[in-house]
Amino acid sequence: MKALRFEHQQLHVADVPMPAAGGEALVRVTLSGICNTDLEIARGYAGFEGTLGHEFVGVIERVADTAAVLAAPGTRVVGEINAGCGRCNLCRGGDSRHCANRTVLGISGRDGAHAEFLKLPAANLLAVPAEISDEQAVFTEPLAAACGILERTSITPHSRIAVIGDGKLGLLCAQVIATIAANVTLIGKHQSKLQIAARRGITTCFWEEKKNRAREFDLVVEASGSPSGFELALDLLRPRGVLVLKSTFHGVTEINAARIVVDEISVVGSRCGRFAPALELLKSGRIDVQNLISEEFALSQGVRAMARAADLGVMKVLLRP
Amino acid sequence: MKALRFEHQQLHVADVPMPAAGGEALVRVTLSGICNTDLEIARGYAGFEGTLGHEFVGVIERVADTAAVLAAPGTRVVGEINAGCGRCNLCRGGDSRHCANRTVLGISGRDGAHAEFLKLPAANLLAVPAEISDEQAVFTEPLAAACGILERTSITPHSRIAVIGDGKLGLLCAQVIATIAANVTLIGKHQSKLQIAARRGITTCFWEEKKNRAREFDLVVEASGSPSGFELALDLLRPRGVLVLKSTFHGVTEINAARIVVDEISVVGSRCGRFAPALELLKSGRIDVQNLISEEFALSQGVRAMARAADLGVMKVLLRP
Repeated sequence: MKALRFEHQQLHVADVPMPAAGGEALVRVTLSGICNTDLEIARGYAGFEGTLGHEFVGVIERVADTAAVLAAPGTRVVGEINAGCGRCNLCRGGDSRHCANRTVLGISGRDGAHAEFLKLPAANLLAVPAEISDEQAVFTEPLAAACGILERTSITPHSRIAVIGDGKLGLLCAQVIATIAANVTLIGKHQSKLQIAARRGITTCFWEEKKNRAREFDLVVEASGSPSGFELALDLLRPRGVLVLKSTFHGVTEINAARIVVDEISVVGSRCGRFAPALELLKSGRIDVQNLISEEFALSQGVRAMARAADLGVMKVLLRP
Repeated sequence: MKALRFEHQQLHVADVPMPAAGGEALVRVTLSGICNTDLEIARGYAGFEGTLGHEFVGVIERVADTAAVLAAPGTRVVGEINAGCGRCNLCRGGDSRHCANRTVLGISGRDGAHAEFLKLPAANLLAVPAEISDEQAVFTEPLAAACGILERTSITPHSRIAVIGDGKLGLLCAQVIATIAANVTLIGKHQSKLQIAARRGITTCFWEEKKNRAREFDLVVEASGSPSGFELALDLLRPRGVLVLKSTFHGVTEINAARIVVDEISVVGSRCGRFAPALELLKSGRIDVQNLISEEFALSQGVRAMARAADLGVMKVLLRP
C-alpha cells in the first residue's frame, strides 16, 4: 500500500506492506489531515520515523477481536491516537493519553494515517454519525484537542476569554470555547481567517490592536505557537488569570518567570482531548470546519501536499488515498 | 531616623526624616529581616529606590485613624506589605495584593522596614500574639508567602509533594505543606539546611539523587530560583502535575514549552500570602523559624548585613534598629 513516510530524514511516498493488525483493528483510510505536528516531524524535530499522520476518517476493514464494541467491517470511524499499555493505572482507568508506555499514531512508535490503511486498538475507534461528512469527521482529532481545554480549565458563561492565533487550532479553540462562554475574542493577523470566527459570532481583532491593552481577560489560549504570543498572553491576562498553552512548538521559549509569579498566573498545558465530545459538536453543526480546508491532494502527492501545508496562510490540507 | 536605603544605584544607611504617616499608622520597627528580594533590588534589577525591607515586627507608635481596629500605641504588630488604592473591586473585596495601583512596602512606591520607623495603612497591621517572639514574628511575611501556596493549589493529605531548594523559602514552604500533606520531600544541596526540615519529619534528599528520577510527584514547588530547578521540577512531576513557581528571580528563564503541553503540566505562580494563617502557624509552634536565622546586625551596619545575606549558604539575616 502507499504511505507518506519520514525516514532517514527524508519525506517520501513509499510502497509498504499493509499493517499487520494482530489483535488490533485494520482501518481503510478515507481521508487524512495534515497537522503542524506532521510538519515538525518532517523537519526532524520530533525523533519519529515512519508513516506520518494522526488525523483521519476511515472504514473498518477487519477487527480480530470480535468482542470489540466496534467490530463490524464497513463502519465509518475516527480513532483516538494514543494507544496505551493497557496495564497501568491510567489505562485501566480508561484514559491512555498519559500512559508512560503509550504509542501515538503517526507521532511515536506507531505508523500513522497518511496511508491506505492503518491499525489501532479497536477500543480507540468511534463510529461517525451519519450527519457528519468525511470532510468534517477528519477534524475530529484537532477539534478534540480544542475540547481538551475544557477538561483542564473552569470556563463559565461569564469568563472573559481571548484566543491568540487565527490558524486552524486557534479557530477551533475559539469556536469550542464560544459554545460555553459569551465573551470570546480571537486575536489574529489575517482578515480572512478572523472572518471565519466572526461569522460564528466571535469577537475578532488584529494582534496590533491588542498590544498594550490592559489586563482584561480571565483566560487566554496561546494557539499561535510563537513566543510573542506567550508575551501577549501575559499582557492580556488579569492577575491570577489562566494561560492555556496549546501549541507544542519546537524548541525553548524564553519566559519572564517573575511575571508569572508577581501576577500569580497559571500556565496550563493542554494536549489531546477525547473524541466523543468533538463528535457531538460536529454533529450539532455548531463548529465550522469546512472553511478551514485549504486544499485536498491525492496521497500519492503527499510530499507536495506537505510543502503546501507549510506555506504561509494555508490552513488544513487533506490527503485522499 | 536611620534607614537602609538604595538610591542612585548605591546602598547606604542614611539619616532621613521620620515618615509622615498622614492617615496611616506609624510603626516603630523592632526587628526586620533581609529577603532575597532586597538583594535583587540592591543589584538594581527591580527599579525601586528608597528604604529597603518588607519583613518586620514592630510596635504601633501612632495611628491617625482612631476608628482603626488596631489603634492602641504599644501594640506589637506585623504588617501586610501591599497597600491598595482602596477603591478598585479587589481592594473593596478586602484583598489589595493585586490592586493595579498598589504600593508595596520596601519594594514599590513605598519606603520599607529597614528603618527605625515605617508607615502602613492601619488595616494592614495584625497584632502579634504573646506566644510569638520578635525573632519568630519577623518571619510572618515569608511564612505567609509560603502559606500562599495553599491558596493557589488543592493539596490533600495524600498529595505527593516535592519542594526544590533548601534555602529559607524552600524550608518554609516544605514545613507549611507538611502541616497538610504526609508525603513531602525537600530537595536541596546543603546537609545542614536539609536537617532543619528532617527534624520536622520531612523527607529530604540531595539534588543529585533526584535527577533522572521518574515522575513520582503530584506537585512540585520551585523555590531554588534557578532555571535548573525548573527543569528538575518538570522531570519530577507526573503527567498533569502542578509546578508552583515561588521565586521571583530576575531575568528570563528558558523553558521547553512543549514539555508543559505534552505532559499537560500546570505552572502556578504564587507570591504573597495572608498574614493571619501565618501567625496561627507561628503560634502553634509547628514551624521552625529559629533555625533559619543566620545572624543579626545593628541597622547601622545594614550595608555589611546585606553583603552577609548575599554570601553563599547564609540564611536569614536580621537588622535591629
